[in-house]
Amino acid sequence: MTDQRATNITRFHSHVRRDERMKVLKQRGCTVWFTGLPASGKSTTAFELERALLERGQLAYVLDGDNIRHGLCRDLGFSRDDREENIRRIGEVAKLFADVGVIAITSFISPYRIHRDQARAVHREAGLEFFEVFIDAPLSVCESRDPKGLYKKARAGELKGMTGIDDPYEVPAGPDLVVKTGTVRPDEAVRLVIDLLTRRTILEAGG
Amino acid sequence: MTDQRATNITRFHSHVRRDERMKVLKQRGCTVWFTGLPASGKSTTAFELERALLERGQLAYVLDGDNIRHGLCRDLGFSRDDREENIRRIGEVAKLFADVGVIAITSFISPYRIHRDQARAVHREAGLEFFEVFIDAPLSVCESRDPKGLYKKARAGELKGMTGIDDPYEVPAGPDLVVKTGTVRPDEAVRLVIDLLTRRTILEAGG
Repeated sequence: MTDQRATNITRFHSHVRRDERMKVLKQRGCTVWFTGLPASGKSTTAFELERALLERGQLAYVLDGDNIRHGLCRDLGFSRDDREENIRRIGEVAKLFADVGVIAITSFISPYRIHRDQARAVHREAGLEFFEVFIDAPLSVCESRDPKGLYKKARAGELKGMTGIDDPYEVPAGPDLVVKTGTVRPDEAVRLVIDLLTRRTILEAGG
Repeated sequence: MTDQRATNITRFHSHVRRDERMKVLKQRGCTVWFTGLPASGKSTTAFELERALLERGQLAYVLDGDNIRHGLCRDLGFSRDDREENIRRIGEVAKLFADVGVIAITSFISPYRIHRDQARAVHREAGLEFFEVFIDAPLSVCESRDPKGLYKKARAGELKGMTGIDDPYEVPAGPDLVVKTGTVRPDEAVRLVIDLLTRRTILEAGG
């Protein structure tokens, strides 16, 4: 048995607590959800964004394969079911981070629209903001980068289930932002996300 | 495929990032892990502690059945395997919170020593502090409180797997703190935890 209390009490508590944490942290938490093909530039942009936000005095944190796949989701593989559960858990953790007041930045391929929509939904239910950022580089560009040689392996048939090759990537239907990392440099990509967060009043203008 | 980078690069990145976040938040993250029988006073103490820390300007966050069992762990039941996986995930999430710089407070029965030790181990591997706090009220006291009527149901045979009745609770072998909530009031319990965090230099003396 866990110590569960009535849902209405919880909701009341949570909102009070979120306000109190905002006084300490002096920022509003949210989730910036990066999605895109392998090697499209998600991690590079995510870590550059985290650094830029920290330099502005904002508390931000990147959730990525390294700190999730080796920890929280170490029991999961790469089947469609496991990918779904992976993204579900990441959505839940990002939600908790946003509730704390952190700007959570997630950097996962997250190829299926329905899973991204579910992540948005759990944020919305909790009254938390969620920004879907499509890191949009053409497959040919991603494949020419191929820093881990995964595309090459997939083309050679040595790797199955590679998004973009033999597994689908569903382009976001209504992303909050599209960043064309095939032509835009990382610092410019970061500026576009910061502009978005400023328009949505997560960040103050001119900060 | 996730975007995974080499472990050595990650570790380097993580440490740099943790230091940078500390500059923003001006506190050191850690996990305060409450364990104890149902109705021993874990949640009460956890929320009082969170409030006291926020009043001191420290960012703290309670992970409990409400925000975990209804979200991240909604796929899990109460079998021994599911309880283990529940505690494993909570340990991983608390670790991420501590890495952000938050004082994570977990409020779960967590009846098995081995699962608590695993939670401590994942923190230690990440260079993060973990304090096990045994919320120690006699079964008779917990049973007389019984705010949700669970003990009564378990005694009547209507509820199976109730910790303390027909499921074991393994008393911590070497907790960082024991709080005797059968005799100590919540405000005094909070003071004991704050004293612990001060001795371990998470909090500054006299703050």
